[in-house]
Amino acid sequence: MESGPRYAATGLFVCFEGGEGGGKSTQSRLLRDWLTAEGHTVLLTFEPGDTAVGREVRRIVLSPETGELSHRTEVLLYAADKAEHVDTVVMPALDRGEVVITDRYVDSALAYQGAGRVLDPADVARVNRWATGDLRPHLTVVLDLAPAAGLGRFEERDRIEAESVEFHERVRAAFLALAVDDPDHYLVLDARQPIDEIAALIRARVAPLLTQAVR
Amino acid sequence: MESGPRYAATGLFVCFEGGEGGGKSTQSRLLRDWLTAEGHTVLLTFEPGDTAVGREVRRIVLSPETGELSHRTEVLLYAADKAEHVDTVVMPALDRGEVVITDRYVDSALAYQGAGRVLDPADVARVNRWATGDLRPHLTVVLDLAPAAGLGRFEERDRIEAESVEFHERVRAAFLALAVDDPDHYLVLDARQPIDEIAALIRARVAPLLTQAVR
Repeated sequence: MESGPRYAATGLFVCFEGGEGGGKSTQSRLLRDWLTAEGHTVLLTFEPGDTAVGREVRRIVLSPETGELSHRTEVLLYAADKAEHVDTVVMPALDRGEVVITDRYVDSALAYQGAGRVLDPADVARVNRWATGDLRPHLTVVLDLAPAAGLGRFEERDRIEAESVEFHERVRAAFLALAVDDPDHYLVLDARQPIDEIAALIRARVAPLLTQAVR
Repeated sequence: MESGPRYAATGLFVCFEGGEGGGKSTQSRLLRDWLTAEGHTVLLTFEPGDTAVGREVRRIVLSPETGELSHRTEVLLYAADKAEHVDTVVMPALDRGEVVITDRYVDSALAYQGAGRVLDPADVARVNRWATGDLRPHLTVVLDLAPAAGLGRFEERDRIEAESVEFHERVRAAFLALAVDDPDHYLVLDARQPIDEIAALIRARVAPLLTQAVR
């Protein structure tokens, strides 16, 4: 089923991951703006949903009419979105030598669906690796934040259910574990730092990788 | 990923498979009618599509607006339909001790998506086995028919593209190969026989299996 991790030979594939409230969309836009100013062609995209199929999948999963979905159904629908996203959006841009920046990718599926503790994380990983042909980002930036800070302001904290915080702690731990296992392809940053400082650290890590992206 | 084939401990799970024009829907209704007359509670269902998610998946795959789907996307969408069908329709009925008859199931995915020769059939099998928790029918009835006969009347034959006939030959061969590998759980019938004779052969094979279905 797996032929091992695959990295695009042309273009540059950068992914932003992490829990809610860590500034993924802000930082992905800042990186896009800097790269564009530097003369690169950049595609900023996101998961789930940035294809016709993805929007339908998102609608099915989020629609109240759908009701409670089977856990495997949800994994497979999100994986279908990823397959379509990689084949029709990400790979064509990389083949053209562009920089592709995505807000969430496979790691989000692994972290969120694995952290639910209902399905075997190894199964979730196999389905997602197959869906994407195991295409990996050259760099994944994890914007790390303790769940309570990400989920709400201090005074709202005790309204968050204990189970929910535990779930988000497991999600956070999953992102960090993926980064620890593959330091060459990950950059973990404390999301509490000032926006400009985080952006500078990301630029410093991305700059040496640009040699393979066509200008 | 796989814990091996799983057969429901209660109820009876019967599946009809084969190419187009073999009489699957006719025979599944005749079996349902006979079993109902015998006092059994029967659920007649089909794939893809007999859940809210399934109908959406069917709509996405068949909609002209969707355009050409990635092959993996299609496999994963159909697998999502199967996961939802098994978890919310098939297993609950089997748990109640009912007879579940389905028009198409996993074998159709294996035969049609494997016969396309684009994806590795072993990968398609793994995704589908995982989607369904590898739940297998107690009996799969294959209504076998040569593709040319199933696809149209004799005078229409030369309008069928050569590649299309080859594709349907591979689909047919895939169904027969699955049956040969597991004779205890398959019944292959020549679909050119009279409807009543086919129905009688199916009843003869199903009758001894009814001991585990609650009446």
